[in-house]
Amino acid sequence: MADLIDIKLLERTEIEVRAQVPVTDRLKQPLGLVHGGVYASIAEAIASLGTWQGARGDGRSVQGQSNQTSFLRPITDWTIHALARRRHGGRTTQVWEVDITDDQGRLCALVRTTVYPEPAEGP
Amino acid sequence: MADLIDIKLLERTEIEVRAQVPVTDRLKQPLGLVHGGVYASIAEAIASLGTWQGARGDGRSVQGQSNQTSFLRPITDWTIHALARRRHGGRTTQVWEVDITDDQGRLCALVRTTVYPEPAEGP
Amino acid sequence: MADLIDIKLLERTEIEVRAQVPVTDRLKQPLGLVHGGVYASIAEAIASLGTWQGARGDGRSVQGQSNQTSFLRPITDWTIHALARRRHGGRTTQVWEVDITDDQGRLCALVRTTVYPEPAEGP
Amino acid sequence: MADLIDIKLLERTEIEVRAQVPVTDRLKQPLGLVHGGVYASIAEAIASLGTWQGARGDGRSVQGQSNQTSFLRPITDWTIHALARRRHGGRTTQVWEVDITDDQGRLCALVRTTVYPEPAEGP
Repeated sequence: MADLIDIKLLERTEIEVRAQVPVTDRLKQPLGLVHGGVYASIAEAIASLGTWQGARGDGRSVQGQSNQTSFLRPITDWTIHALARRRHGGRTTQVWEVDITDDQGRLCALVRTTVYPEPAEGP
Repeated sequence: MADLIDIKLLERTEIEVRAQVPVTDRLKQPLGLVHGGVYASIAEAIASLGTWQGARGDGRSVQGQSNQTSFLRPITDWTIHALARRRHGGRTTQVWEVDITDDQGRLCALVRTTVYPEPAEGP
Repeated sequence: MADLIDIKLLERTEIEVRAQVPVTDRLKQPLGLVHGGVYASIAEAIASLGTWQGARGDGRSVQGQSNQTSFLRPITDWTIHALARRRHGGRTTQVWEVDITDDQGRLCALVRTTVYPEPAEGP
Repeated sequence: MADLIDIKLLERTEIEVRAQVPVTDRLKQPLGLVHGGVYASIAEAIASLGTWQGARGDGRSVQGQSNQTSFLRPITDWTIHALARRRHGGRTTQVWEVDITDDQGRLCALVRTTVYPEPAEGP
């Protein structure tokens, strides 16, 4: 969905990823609010990037397992801000929590996502 | 996201919505799997349509409150099938469960979403 | 919690578990409703029993990974009915959905729980 | 469940509640781990207390709407520590996130719970 959701990475380590996404009409519902699925998608994407960052030495890929998003306040314009923090870095699963805020710093959505790094397929 | 996720409605009542979405490259992660956020987005969209269908006489709009998606099996090609069933139709919130399957009928994702109908703004 | 939550198993296979729990004062909040944690606890317990049933030949134990409970309608008296169905039976995780109903058959809570069978420790 | 889960409140404001629960055999599964439902129950209880604290002037009661618990690391002994923070304090719903830790300060479970304050019934 890279051409639709234009994620600008501001910071990316194996325990924290910060990103911004500009709000465009294509991300909105008919009512003019950013579609709820957009927040889930951003969170999946950046938590996967963080997990992949941590697993890179191992040549692993990353798969999502679950995503729990609570919608708190609509975003209608400007910029979606996302801060993902790794809360659990186990051997088989990682759990990330993602705060979605607007330009005024108000909390608009909370996401918890569980991902697991997978061994890359051999040659 | 209507131009990205091309939802074909097959059935739409206030208690059940069935839809299909063709898999395109734009819905995929770099690894070739349909992006997890796509399932969440489809479920949000069709549960909202069902809720709106039920609330139509009231001139209400619909807002999402939470979305919980479990990713069970990747989809890589052809068609995403979604069946949304209303499990709870309360006055203030509705809870829908959505089964996502592939062309072979295999269960690929489970979504539970809570939405609430809102009184439309007055004239 | 076996002495607090008195689970009567009615059926138990590796894909379905049905159980009943009598409502007692000890399961209630101060307001007289069954405590939300009780539904989560019942679901965890019976999904684990089903998973263990399926894994029995392997001498495996079972651990919970996540539990998502939606509270739809309070139960105040008589009996809690629980029906757990396995929706996904993967190698590493199982996903169960549990319907909680009251004596009138009304849906009172929905639970989705992810558990994973673990290899038993060797001798 | 007050006589089973012995919650000691350490701090209680309308935006933060801290509590401890001693681990007893009655809180454990057959395998010796604290039952997953216990974490969900503690979180429901203390988030409700915080919400009630904030709503007290209004004579409102508090009902749970959903509870999402991720189990990260088992607790087998001593004390369960819980820190609940209000992340969203809307008019109709409140969202709390609860960190469950053990005596070494290791994160053992994450809970997000949505509750809503209800107008008390009139005289």
